[in-house]
Amino acid sequence: MPRINEHFRSLRAAYLFAEIRRRTQAFREAHPDARLVNLGIGDVTQPLPPAVIEALHAATDEMARPETFRGYGPYAGYEFLLAAIAAHDFGARGVRLSLDEIFVSDGGKSDSANLQELFAPECVVALMDPVYPVYADSNVVAGRSGPADDSGRYPDFVYLPCTADNAFEPALPDRHVDLIYLCYPNNPTGAVATREALTRWVDYARAENATILFDAAYEAYVVDPDVPRSIYEIPGAREVAIESRSFSKTAGFTGMRLAYTVVPKEARGRTADGTDTSLNALWTRRVGIKSNGPPYLIQKAAAAVYTPEGQKQVRDLIDGYPTNARIIADGLARAGFAVYGGRNAPYIWFRTPAGIPSWEFFDQLLSNAQVLGAPGAGFGPSGEGYFRLTAFGSRADAEEAVERIRTRLSA
Amino acid sequence: MPRINEHFRSLRAAYLFAEIRRRTQAFREAHPDARLVNLGIGDVTQPLPPAVIEALHAATDEMARPETFRGYGPYAGYEFLLAAIAAHDFGARGVRLSLDEIFVSDGGKSDSANLQELFAPECVVALMDPVYPVYADSNVVAGRSGPADDSGRYPDFVYLPCTADNAFEPALPDRHVDLIYLCYPNNPTGAVATREALTRWVDYARAENATILFDAAYEAYVVDPDVPRSIYEIPGAREVAIESRSFSKTAGFTGMRLAYTVVPKEARGRTADGTDTSLNALWTRRVGIKSNGPPYLIQKAAAAVYTPEGQKQVRDLIDGYPTNARIIADGLARAGFAVYGGRNAPYIWFRTPAGIPSWEFFDQLLSNAQVLGAPGAGFGPSGEGYFRLTAFGSRADAEEAVERIRTRLSA
Repeated sequence: MPRINEHFRSLRAAYLFAEIRRRTQAFREAHPDARLVNLGIGDVTQPLPPAVIEALHAATDEMARPETFRGYGPYAGYEFLLAAIAAHDFGARGVRLSLDEIFVSDGGKSDSANLQELFAPECVVALMDPVYPVYADSNVVAGRSGPADDSGRYPDFVYLPCTADNAFEPALPDRHVDLIYLCYPNNPTGAVATREALTRWVDYARAENATILFDAAYEAYVVDPDVPRSIYEIPGAREVAIESRSFSKTAGFTGMRLAYTVVPKEARGRTADGTDTSLNALWTRRVGIKSNGPPYLIQKAAAAVYTPEGQKQVRDLIDGYPTNARIIADGLARAGFAVYGGRNAPYIWFRTPAGIPSWEFFDQLLSNAQVLGAPGAGFGPSGEGYFRLTAFGSRADAEEAVERIRTRLSA
Repeated sequence: MPRINEHFRSLRAAYLFAEIRRRTQAFREAHPDARLVNLGIGDVTQPLPPAVIEALHAATDEMARPETFRGYGPYAGYEFLLAAIAAHDFGARGVRLSLDEIFVSDGGKSDSANLQELFAPECVVALMDPVYPVYADSNVVAGRSGPADDSGRYPDFVYLPCTADNAFEPALPDRHVDLIYLCYPNNPTGAVATREALTRWVDYARAENATILFDAAYEAYVVDPDVPRSIYEIPGAREVAIESRSFSKTAGFTGMRLAYTVVPKEARGRTADGTDTSLNALWTRRVGIKSNGPPYLIQKAAAAVYTPEGQKQVRDLIDGYPTNARIIADGLARAGFAVYGGRNAPYIWFRTPAGIPSWEFFDQLLSNAQVLGAPGAGFGPSGEGYFRLTAFGSRADAEEAVERIRTRLSA
């Protein structure tokens, strides 16, 4: 048998969300009549907005006629979508991007997992802790971590702890790092970065010759006008930052699979012999070799999000989530939990009662209250003792979850 | 700046199809009135079959209603599609697969590029030469090739030359290899493998502890009943072969992005300390970390291909291509070219006139006849001196191309 990629063995036992699905499935089989309230996997629940539905029907009809049928598309996405992204998501906020700096893809998950392929295996990875697990897992498989210890901590990563003690604002690394994964608004803590905090990161990356991989998947949930939505609002970021965004949590696209990544022309890496290399050129090459872009239909659907009706409908669509977040956060606080997040972000983060391990609390919550959440430990070592609920359920789900937790569990 | 993945520098100058697009674009800009006949990139041109269109409209309506809306799907594809694949593509030919051996993805290109991630960097890669360039390029970037020489040959690959001299049937490698990329019906030569030839490969892989990565993207074009459509028709293949297929060239899905890969439970790799490891378990893990599966809409569209109407419509859809292939092959032969392929395969492969380099012939064909093809050299060193045309254009395109080549170029 051929030798396998040994780094797979370094991975902790299971991918967080796969493990949540597995335990949920087992519970459902054992309790077929239980009515679960699912605030676990951060999945949206509202149907697609009418403008998107209309665009899908229209694009489907195009695919039915020889004159308008589309085969292979451009590797990095159709110009109609790239132009809409550049104008609405960036131009409107004073950030100028050229279309060949934007790469449309089939998801924030794949972009988060794939970006590390541009870099050398010996690059030192820093990541917020806790954070979306894909940054860690993809770098583990690429050999940048060493094997996980029993707590799920990888020895070669530089963790940036985000806990109640530092108000979920991580300190700069105390050693040189090459790649820095930041996610703001943060999944799972719901924390946001001020302009000053992001400026510190950009300045640090410039000083250390590091690259920031900035995940802005939840930027649509920012309501405070002084919180940056894009890292490119910070001077100097174009040289040191790659930004990824997704339509999943903005337009209800989790089942549609559409996202994009911005790699500015000024972003650079270097070869072993010190040659300066364009990361934009490398990513262009990588995309050309490994992708054919997302389906035409899906790109048309995404473009409809940027029409005036689309914009209004999307705002209506996600408008309910901040209220859900407040209901959950306030309810948990009243029940005696220490609660964080839930403002400028669709995630509520709270301490498990009496500091019990987060997977144990996951099981308790499921058994006693039939509420599904996500255990903090699955997001990184500093997530232990915390728990995440999402605001993506219905209003009734949010209220029901709070009521069940209040009456069936003690904080 | 962070160190880049140095292996990107080993890549030959440009990805074949990106370079074809670039030259075509330049020609179009210089000759805006020229009417090009495009038999270059192997893209389909017929609209989606009615059953697929109907499924897309219906699935779109499901996404518009809260009761039927779908968010995140299973990482490896919905069961309705996996079950249809298992029954129709394999069960009907006596090959039994369990559903967790099938992994639905967003394209044969990504599967071809990603499968190598399961294996150690030191694995020795053998590949048919010429062949679809993604197998080579993805292994280059993973560090298994060394830098290309001027002819585009990579020193660490084991090439399996397929030329007129061996009737496009490659000999077994003359040294140990770990990974063997086979593509049948072959892109670009149009050659097929007999049962005996495939059995030799399976036996070789078993003896050498190698894994075959079998690309069957064009199996729908097989008409001879004794030509295997799946490598799993060969006894012993489940232990040593991974098979990928695509809806692109079968159901006109190049713009829809849907494919799948089969990783049998018996397929094994080994770790450095000799531990036996399930490749199915590794690929399951990889898919869980890096993908969220293709869009629900697209999976519903693919499932419609397996309905009785879908099957009939798809047969009608691709029925025209073998005739196109024959028109092109016969026309080129009459014009004096040495022609291969075009039976059991949608590609026609022929020698360039007087052995002129294939990129030079590409430019000649474009300038003199305004016909777009694909230069053999782009598929590997042994493709030099050959040229590929596809049968995927319209009937009129096939006839026009032959007429132009006959009258404007000499064989």
